Parts: sequence; structure tokens; C-alpha cells
Amino acid sequence: MIYADNAATTKMSDKAIQTMACLLQEAWGNPSSLYVHGQKAKEVLEQAREDIASVIGASAQEILFTSGGSEADNQALRTAAELGKKKGKRHIISTTFEHHAILHTLETLKKDGFDITLLDVHENGIVIPAEVEAAIREDTCLVSIMYANNEIGTIQPIREIGAICRRKGVLFHVDAVQAVGHIPVNVVDDNIDMLSSSAHKFHGPKGVGFLYAKKGIRLTNLIEGGAQEHGKRTGTENVPGIAAMAEALKEADANMAAYAEHLIKMRNRLIQGLQEIPHSALNGDATQRLPGNVNFCFEGIEGESLLLLLDDKGICASSGSACTSGSLDPSHVLLAIGRIHDVAHGSLRLSIGEDITEEEVDYIIQSTKEVVAYLRSFSPVWRDLMAGKKEFIL
Amino acid sequence: MIYADNAATTKMSDKAIQTMACLLQEAWGNPSSLYVHGQKAKEVLEQAREDIASVIGASAQEILFTSGGSEADNQALRTAAELGKKKGKRHIISTTFEHHAILHTLETLKKDGFDITLLDVHENGIVIPAEVEAAIREDTCLVSIMYANNEIGTIQPIREIGAICRRKGVLFHVDAVQAVGHIPVNVVDDNIDMLSSSAHKFHGPKGVGFLYAKKGIRLTNLIEGGAQEHGKRTGTENVPGIAAMAEALKEADANMAAYAEHLIKMRNRLIQGLQEIPHSALNGDATQRLPGNVNFCFEGIEGESLLLLLDDKGICASSGSACTSGSLDPSHVLLAIGRIHDVAHGSLRLSIGEDITEEEVDYIIQSTKEVVAYLRSFSPVWRDLMAGKKEFIL
Repeated sequence: MIYADNAATTKMSDKAIQTMACLLQEAWGNPSSLYVHGQKAKEVLEQAREDIASVIGASAQEILFTSGGSEADNQALRTAAELGKKKGKRHIISTTFEHHAILHTLETLKKDGFDITLLDVHENGIVIPAEVEAAIREDTCLVSIMYANNEIGTIQPIREIGAICRRKGVLFHVDAVQAVGHIPVNVVDDNIDMLSSSAHKFHGPKGVGFLYAKKGIRLTNLIEGGAQEHGKRTGTENVPGIAAMAEALKEADANMAAYAEHLIKMRNRLIQGLQEIPHSALNGDATQRLPGNVNFCFEGIEGESLLLLLDDKGICASSGSACTSGSLDPSHVLLAIGRIHDVAHGSLRLSIGEDITEEEVDYIIQSTKEVVAYLRSFSPVWRDLMAGKKEFIL
Repeated sequence: MIYADNAATTKMSDKAIQTMACLLQEAWGNPSSLYVHGQKAKEVLEQAREDIASVIGASAQEILFTSGGSEADNQALRTAAELGKKKGKRHIISTTFEHHAILHTLETLKKDGFDITLLDVHENGIVIPAEVEAAIREDTCLVSIMYANNEIGTIQPIREIGAICRRKGVLFHVDAVQAVGHIPVNVVDDNIDMLSSSAHKFHGPKGVGFLYAKKGIRLTNLIEGGAQEHGKRTGTENVPGIAAMAEALKEADANMAAYAEHLIKMRNRLIQGLQEIPHSALNGDATQRLPGNVNFCFEGIEGESLLLLLDDKGICASSGSACTSGSLDPSHVLLAIGRIHDVAHGSLRLSIGEDITEEEVDYIIQSTKEVVAYLRSFSPVWRDLMAGKKEFIL
């Protein structure tokens, strides 16, 4: 199996699994308990908090553990909305290609009376900082922009946007689920006020994530109850999972430069190979993208069939976000960068992992070429395109 | 170490750990993905859903996976509130001794215009069904009562209360975090509409729980985003954790009768032994309580010192809920059953596990006797009591 869907989820690293397995036996106490066994769990928890904070340039008390990226996103937006409300500020700026954890929460906030501006991300899938600045109003309480897109992998000019928000006195939230552990993220240098992250995207466990909130930001609870996490995120802490997340993040951080170098080489080889397929196009900027992300549209085919046939060849890939699979709508991200419905339907996301080899990349290229040709051989749309009854777009 | 704090958290069973460790290697795919590797994770997820449903008498589609009991409680209450609002019903009935995941959410709902009635639980810690019935009004949209209390372990007449709610057409939510896996719980027989549960209370992993919602109840999202869990609980499912929860629950269910028989014997031995301590009292009903729960008040001492000294003797216990530790307020549960502040401060909860031996029980009794006597020997309150300057309450 060649697993090329690391943007959907990653396999836990051996170290992270070992950490978890060990702590399930050794540190399973309730960290809120007074006795030594509970306090040992508490120590593990606080060490994980420090380790994670240190990787992203935060202090430990600025890290809140959540059940994952979606929860962190929801809590960040709810927090900014509550803080905004108190100041009579009900305008939020985001983009058209955010994850649904952002977009759906914004829809709910809209029903609650918030005014939402969704910025265009242009053809290359990148937000222009000056457009963020121009959209900021007197009543803007939040700018929320993802660090790297989950489908097309484009990396946003977060630092510049953050600087604008700082200057304008507007809170800046960054959904960094796809970025943390893959590219350098530093909340101080990047001028970030709140940041969401998820462990299973960087070889940590599922069901664990964290929200960074700059000191002084009073978080709104999504889940109310006990006194855990200073009362801001209740429920007994998943200490073994949290420690495994910290382990995975430290590992990802230590290997980041080496992995990125290899991944970028493999990514570019993959892009080059797939570009040989006629009437195909890379989605998103060619260089300002995640080291492991490749996303293509192929005219005249259905993405779903492509995936199933690649699966037969032992290649795990996706057409876009796993979170929206099952939906018949084309990717909102591809529509956001200007792909029309028909073309957006024929998309392929390959998110390769650091252990991928040149041979595997070549195998993916060869397999994709074969499968695309095969699917086109009986595609009525392709026939119409070839017969000149329809015009090629790509 | 004698671990007598199973109400705070339990150690994962060997089987549950094995299941998890195996699936972290085998079924780590994203269950929303189309390829075989993802679909394998999906199968594991749906098998877990069926297994869990089957234990509590529900159907699979009525089970929603959450990050734990607190999240399930929050979502159940928010759901009932939303449904009530639509019908112009804004009255909720609960009790004074619920978990804070319920009480704090109710406080927030109160701010949103809901009228909250908190029923008394009387000296024995048990709600009287007729009082629930009497409290139900035309505009009541929810009754929420816990199955078994997390501090004093008293078991509520859920089936009778459920029957009343059915008859009156009022939604009935049950926080069954302490009950599931320990005593028989069947949502059909017990007339339950929504039920919250948490894996780490029955030897499953932390960070995983579930919400049962009877077919037809349209859940309100706590976390918005992707299409997982029919869009009602977004975020990539923690498949290994969920499967480990199912494994632990099946195991707990299969062994329930045998464990309960042993635990009740041990519990009663413990109660009998501790009752020999002068000026002590069992909290909550002596028989209508969880098989493993013992909760005492000892006059003239501080619970915290008691715990630390018991810890020195290798006994892990608590004064009440771990979720509120760090707070200087006495337990709201003990106040609810009529203990005055001074007495409530001297509480001890022992929640024993099924592997406890008679020798260990006797050791706990002997140790507690020694520690209570020692603490009283230099307690100014005890001196005043003995000198007749204060009156004994217990």
C-alpha cells in the first residue's frame, strides 16, 4: 500500500505509539486527583503542555487541550464572537476556502447576527494581505485564516496578515491543522492570537488536539463542567493521548527540515509527472504549498472513480477533504480558486508522507496516467470534448 | 498501591489496551476515506457502534461518539433546549446533585432565558419520582437526572422517572457516566430519551464517550464542521479509542453480575468497618448505591489531609469528585443531602474496583481508622467537640 492521504490522517509514529502504550499502563490516573498516582499523570500532562508550547513558540499556560482541530476551531471562533459582542463588534473576516469547522461555525454566527466577510483566495489559492487589510472595519472582531489549505496545500502569508491584525487591533485566529508539524509555525513571529491544531495530522493520535490562545484572551467554553484546563475545557484529560501528541510533535519538529527537503523533491517530481497528462492542471500555487501536497484536476473524469481504481493499484488518495466525503457537491476549495463544477469533480489530492520513495512516486504517476486514460476511454464528457462538442477548459 | 478511586477514572482493561494498540497499527485510516484502508476503519467504527448500542438496548444509529461524558452531557442539554425553544417550552427539571457538566450548562441556559428547577435529593441521596412529576409543567422541555451519583453512588429510580416523562411527553436525559458498565442500563426498559456515557469510567480509554439519542431526536451540534457522525459531531473519529471503548464495555457487561456480587460484599464490609469510627456517617443510601461506592463523613477532620495520609499508606482515594478538586468549597453533593459545611469538608470517597480483596478492604479500614484518629488528635475542631464547646452532628 502506498499511503498518499496524509492530509486526511497520518499513521501514528512508533515513538508516539510507544509513549501512549506505556502511559496507558503507567500514567492512567486522573490528573485532578491529589494522590501521587494522580499527580504523576498531572506531571505528564504539564510536560506535554510545555513541550507543545515550546515547539510553536508559546508558553505552556497558553495551550488548551481539546478533542481535535474541529473543536479548537469552534472554540476559537466562539471566543472571538463573545469578546466581539461585548464590545459591540460583530464583523468577522475569513476566506471562502476554510475548513468546514470554520465555515459552518461562521454560518451559525451569521444567524446570531454576525456579519461575515469571506475573502477570495484567487486562482493560486492564496489570500492577499492587502485585501485582508481593506476588509477590516471598525466593528471587525476577528480575522480567521488557515495556515495551509487542507485540499490544495497552499500556504498563506500568515505573518503579514498577523501584522496587519496587530496594527488594527483585531484578533487573529489561524487554523493550523495542516501546518503544525509540517512547516515552521511560531505564534510570536507569526503574530497569531489563537491557533488550532490536531494531533492525527502529524503522526499523533486521533481524538486529541490543542488550541493556543494568547495570554489575556478569555476563552469561551464549548463544553462546560468540571475545573479541568482552568475550567475552559472540561472532562478528564486524555493524558496518554496528549503525551503521545507532544511526542509526535517534537519528533515532527526535529525532523521537519530534512523531511521537507525530501518531500519537496518528491512533490515536484510528482507534479512534473502528472502534468504530462493532457488537459490536467495543478490546483494551487506550484511552490507556496505544503511540502507533501499535490492536487490536480483532470478534465473529463470523475474523481471518485479515479480513487477507486487507484485503490485497486494499492494507492490511497482522495479527491479532497475526507471530512466532506459522501457529499455530491464538488469541493468548495476548488470552486473558490475558480474551477468550474465539471472540472472540480475530476480532482485528485495526493498528500505524500516523508517515507515515500522515488520509485513509489513514479508508480503513482504511471498508475494515474493509466487510470485517467482508462476512465477517459469511456467518458461521454471526454468524447464530447474530443469531438469538439464541448470546449476544453484545462 | 490500592486504587480506590475508580469513580474518578479506571485503568484500561488489558483487552481494551490490546484492541487499541492493535488498531493503532491496523485501522488508523480515516473512516471517511473511500479506499479500502479507510473503509476498514469505518467497519471497525460501525462494529463498535453496534456493540455499544447492543449493550444498552439501543440501535446503532442512536449512538453518537463524543470526546467523553462532559461533551455528551452538554450536547444533550443543548439539544433539548433547542427543541424546547422551538415549541416555546423553556423549563428544565434537574437535581441539586448532578455533575457540573449538567449544572454549569444549566446555568448558561438560565442566562439564555430558561427556567431551571433543581429538585432536592433528600438525606438518602435519592430523587422521589412523584416530586419529578409534580415539578413538570406545561412548558417543561427536559428532565435530566443522573443514573448514579458520582460522589455518593446513589442509584436513582430512573425507570419510574422515565415512565412519568413518557406519560407527560417530556424529554428525559440521563447522565449515566457512573452507571454504564457497572449496573444494568437499558434505554428502552428505562424509558430514556438521551443518555451520556464515558469510556474511562468502565476501563476504556480517556477522551472517548458516547451520547445515546432516541431515534427522531434531532441533535444540536456542539462542534460544527465536517460530515462525520451524520454531521452531528464533527472531527475525524478516534477509531482505535472508540473500538477500545466498545471492547471495555462488552467486557464490563459480560462480567457485571459476578463483579457486582463481589463488589457489594466488599463495599458492605468496608461500610461496616468504617462505621466503627465514632462520629462518622455513611453518605447516601446504604443499599441503593453503586456496588463499588463508599462515601463517609468523619467529624472534626479535613478530607484533604485524610487523602494525603492515606496516599502515604498506598491508598488512592478522593474526597469527592476529581473534576472539582482544587476548589475550596465543600462538595455540592454532600450539601445537597443536607450535610453542613464543616461535616462535608471531612468526606472520603472510596470507589473500589472488582479486583479488590478482603485483605485490602481490611487494610483500608485499619488505615482510615488510624489516620482519622491521628488527624483528630491535633484538630482544634475535634478538641472543641470533645470539650463540649461544640455539638457533635454525626
